[in-house]
Amino acid sequence: MSGLNGDGSILCVGSVALDSVETPFGRAERVIGGSAVYFTAAASLFHEVKVVGVVGDDYPLRELEFLAERGADLSGIEQRAGESFFWAGRYHFDLNSRDTLETKLGVFAHFEPKIPRSFRAARYVFLGNIDPKLQHDVLDQVEDPDVVACDTMNYWIEGSREPLLELLGRVRILIINDEEVRQLAGEANLLRAARWVQKRGPELVVVKKGEHGAILFGGDWVFFVPGFPLESVFDPTGAGDAFAGGFMGYLARAGSLSPEDLRRAMVYGSAMGSFAVEAFSVRRLIDVPVSDIERRVAQFREITAFETHVGTLAGS
Amino acid sequence: MSGLNGDGSILCVGSVALDSVETPFGRAERVIGGSAVYFTAAASLFHEVKVVGVVGDDYPLRELEFLAERGADLSGIEQRAGESFFWAGRYHFDLNSRDTLETKLGVFAHFEPKIPRSFRAARYVFLGNIDPKLQHDVLDQVEDPDVVACDTMNYWIEGSREPLLELLGRVRILIINDEEVRQLAGEANLLRAARWVQKRGPELVVVKKGEHGAILFGGDWVFFVPGFPLESVFDPTGAGDAFAGGFMGYLARAGSLSPEDLRRAMVYGSAMGSFAVEAFSVRRLIDVPVSDIERRVAQFREITAFETHVGTLAGS
Repeated sequence: MSGLNGDGSILCVGSVALDSVETPFGRAERVIGGSAVYFTAAASLFHEVKVVGVVGDDYPLRELEFLAERGADLSGIEQRAGESFFWAGRYHFDLNSRDTLETKLGVFAHFEPKIPRSFRAARYVFLGNIDPKLQHDVLDQVEDPDVVACDTMNYWIEGSREPLLELLGRVRILIINDEEVRQLAGEANLLRAARWVQKRGPELVVVKKGEHGAILFGGDWVFFVPGFPLESVFDPTGAGDAFAGGFMGYLARAGSLSPEDLRRAMVYGSAMGSFAVEAFSVRRLIDVPVSDIERRVAQFREITAFETHVGTLAGS
Repeated sequence: MSGLNGDGSILCVGSVALDSVETPFGRAERVIGGSAVYFTAAASLFHEVKVVGVVGDDYPLRELEFLAERGADLSGIEQRAGESFFWAGRYHFDLNSRDTLETKLGVFAHFEPKIPRSFRAARYVFLGNIDPKLQHDVLDQVEDPDVVACDTMNYWIEGSREPLLELLGRVRILIINDEEVRQLAGEANLLRAARWVQKRGPELVVVKKGEHGAILFGGDWVFFVPGFPLESVFDPTGAGDAFAGGFMGYLARAGSLSPEDLRRAMVYGSAMGSFAVEAFSVRRLIDVPVSDIERRVAQFREITAFETHVGTLAGS
């Protein structure tokens, strides 16, 4: 069940949280969430993941057992006295915008990632959206990983710009929202914003655009995958982290960063993001059958493939 | 040069305007624009177009000569005493939003499309974004066309809802912006909004999403084309009409509405939209070489194509 190919595993460091979410379709109270949980729920379908995070003594750890059953190593999730990171939010009618109703950092306020010795040789590292100083701390503890990917957000772009820019020099893949990469680069044009980032370190920039899909900017090439056209988007929370999990999980499983594998990784990532939004929390990722994932990837091909006729306009 | 295949031509009815545009990169004063001009500038690269519109005695008709040189028939553009339709707008930093500074309808306020006898047998009809009552008037004058496509906007969705809904029953393809189809259907989900439209007549709904690309909703299938990642978007004015021109032009040239041709039409439409935004007015569409169009279509394939491995996850 683990999907292990004998390749190095993925180290994931991020938030392990409780979310209360309201959407036009319903509400969920104190359900499991956080970047590390969504990432691992997707990535563990592809490859072994080792998770580092912190929770309070109120956290329903048994609800993470499905991850361990898939081969994820949760021994790096520290439990401390106090409350778990809690986020409450409400999505608007069109699901493209939301209000944060409450954020309580709890034990996450004093999170100091400690990477267990057995985790340090991971070939793939995903740094979820946390303080860039902590992202540096993680990289200081790991042995020479092949692929380091990181996420970030406007809060750090505004408030921790220097450590974030320094981090870019240590990262091979930046995975970021469109508005955030524009803000980071001070550049409205996405292509130029990605080139700006690439000059500062990451050879690959993955720009997440929510319902509009995602774009991978390679060295001299670009790959685009649309958002999957779903009839019912239930809860957008965690879609970006599930995308990152499918993307990194596929790459680790393939053991390659070839353009062909990067393209497929983008599609598997988008497939996982599209499943994540079909239910509250990680519910859909718990029991999604492999056949559904493969079918959705095939559907991505159907909705984007076309054949060209050489010389359609020639001679006109 | 005309690209005629002996198939029926395209009748296009829409605005023929003068635009004053400010972008972060420059300004243009009283340059040719309007839905019929952008549409025809793109469509005439593929097929014969017959244009119906109205201009004032201030219109620089000689600047439309490049359309006639490509085989477009401009004899349906009526010149009347008075001022041409004039629009002035200013785009914001990110080019995704704009302010209208001035709109003067001029002779367009009394536009009553008169379809010349020689235009009435056109097999393809494109109804640009004008009053739905006028769109009805056009359809009342033409003989049995094979393919009627129309565009519309929030102004008519709010103010002329009944004639617009009635028009949908006479139209085979609705070409519309994402915000507008949501407003028309009262439905935030694009897929459901498209299905809502399809129940009222059009078998095909093309949703334009600006820099995020475009989606074609067929009977039981969907096709997605991204916005072309341009390093310099100069002026977004007219991109949607150039898209529609490339789309309809390709379909008329192919003489087919097969799913394969519809997919290619979406890509040619997107290519023409991407050229339109590279310069003010229709400047880029005047002299774009056929080889550039074909190259861009090939690039669309490069940025979206991927190969799947059957059973990537099987056995995991």
